[in-house]
Amino acid sequence: MSLWSEENHEGLMKIALKTKAKCFEGVSEFQKVEIVETEALGRALLLDGVWMTAEGDEKTYHEMISHPALTTAPRIKRVLIIGGGDGGTAREVLRHPEVECVDLVELDAMVVEACRKYLPSIGSAWGDPRLHVHIADGIRWVKNYQGAPYDVILVDGPDPIGPAEGLFARDFYESCAKALSPEGVFVTQSESPNMMRELHLKILAELKGCFKKVLPYYKGVVIYPGGEWSWTYASQSVDPMYINLERASRISKDTYIYNEMVHRGAFAVPNHIRKVLER
Amino acid sequence: MSLWSEENHEGLMKIALKTKAKCFEGVSEFQKVEIVETEALGRALLLDGVWMTAEGDEKTYHEMISHPALTTAPRIKRVLIIGGGDGGTAREVLRHPEVECVDLVELDAMVVEACRKYLPSIGSAWGDPRLHVHIADGIRWVKNYQGAPYDVILVDGPDPIGPAEGLFARDFYESCAKALSPEGVFVTQSESPNMMRELHLKILAELKGCFKKVLPYYKGVVIYPGGEWSWTYASQSVDPMYINLERASRISKDTYIYNEMVHRGAFAVPNHIRKVLER
Repeated sequence: MSLWSEENHEGLMKIALKTKAKCFEGVSEFQKVEIVETEALGRALLLDGVWMTAEGDEKTYHEMISHPALTTAPRIKRVLIIGGGDGGTAREVLRHPEVECVDLVELDAMVVEACRKYLPSIGSAWGDPRLHVHIADGIRWVKNYQGAPYDVILVDGPDPIGPAEGLFARDFYESCAKALSPEGVFVTQSESPNMMRELHLKILAELKGCFKKVLPYYKGVVIYPGGEWSWTYASQSVDPMYINLERASRISKDTYIYNEMVHRGAFAVPNHIRKVLER
Repeated sequence: MSLWSEENHEGLMKIALKTKAKCFEGVSEFQKVEIVETEALGRALLLDGVWMTAEGDEKTYHEMISHPALTTAPRIKRVLIIGGGDGGTAREVLRHPEVECVDLVELDAMVVEACRKYLPSIGSAWGDPRLHVHIADGIRWVKNYQGAPYDVILVDGPDPIGPAEGLFARDFYESCAKALSPEGVFVTQSESPNMMRELHLKILAELKGCFKKVLPYYKGVVIYPGGEWSWTYASQSVDPMYINLERASRISKDTYIYNEMVHRGAFAVPNHIRKVLER
């Protein structure tokens, strides 16, 4: 094997990590799944050659996709995770004792199987009885959803290429809005405001068609291109600045980056995005 | 030439940009200087194979190294920039009309000459009569400094390898503290809290030996390894949260990312760094 594993981002930028060994390689119905052992960041997952997560870097992403929603939604009993097949988002969500049920809907069984086996430190909550893993299409799951409303929906999916394209469409966001309780909170990863600026703005625009409050937030993730990464918080009624401080300080005892100030600071919108949003 | 120009960060991680042309290559007394034309980010400068700045990405770095100091120091008449040979930091500093004199002390004449010629959009303030460029050793400059105290000192240098090593030493920080007015503000780039965590913490520890207030701040820069980049704000008396709102709102009319909220939010310290600082 090559000494380096690399992501080629749209033929423009490559991010390569020195690699000691390949742990897993498989081709599922949906994509190529690889887990490699890197020098700098431990074991890491690539899907179709794009870095998804790495042991030494995953906490920023998983804490930031989870805790802003989980520390602000009034109720957090019922949580839906779409994607998230590495288990890291579920682990962070389940650290909140108020959470009673997590539906994790991942399209690709091979991702879950490979991550359970080779990335156990990321998915350390697979055995939690509150977690229900469904190998299914998340877009169809929310479209046909008839169950009790979710309090929180987190979309932890890849870039909009192939089957994940629908995770960035208005239809999908509308289904999510309907599957949420009136005081529910929706968060999706929403790409880099620098290297994927147009896509980031498109996600914000589509979400604004479905939710009354739509606020992007930002933090740098080592293995993703573009310096800053973004997630977007959307709700009909909940404000991400009204933090439940008891929950935030409890969770911050063991987080890598998340704390109340990091939460607040992440919602500072860079001027070039703010100017578009204020138009 | 190769179709890709790449930085190899300590043999662990590579950041490569697709390259259309090489504009300049030279070897100075101090380092290899290259300017390449990239597909994604326009022209970019590498020193000894390490990405320094790129037209399509430079604003985040140059705004963040400049405006937190320039919007909080009570007086900003006299500014010293150490390094900063691409001219981007000087450009941002000189956008504040209160600034009367900027000494820019860059070690390597070749960097200034190549950047003036090939990166004119970054160094767009070379002709400003308030700017005084000195090709000299910045460490010696502050050590021997006998002039009127500076109101702001900004250290815009590369990683601590070769001649830049002294820019990260206690002696240098002590000289800077002495060259500053009592209400002066010092800012240095302070590396990635993720990929260069120990170095980042060492910079903070050394600065704490010389300044009463030492506060790191963070923002992602596309071409630097580690997701988040950091700068550190140090002063004997000035607090980075007491922002001169007139200056901040004036400058924010034309900034790419900087605004009052971005300023405040950047000072949120990730938990893993905060825990070390609170020990």
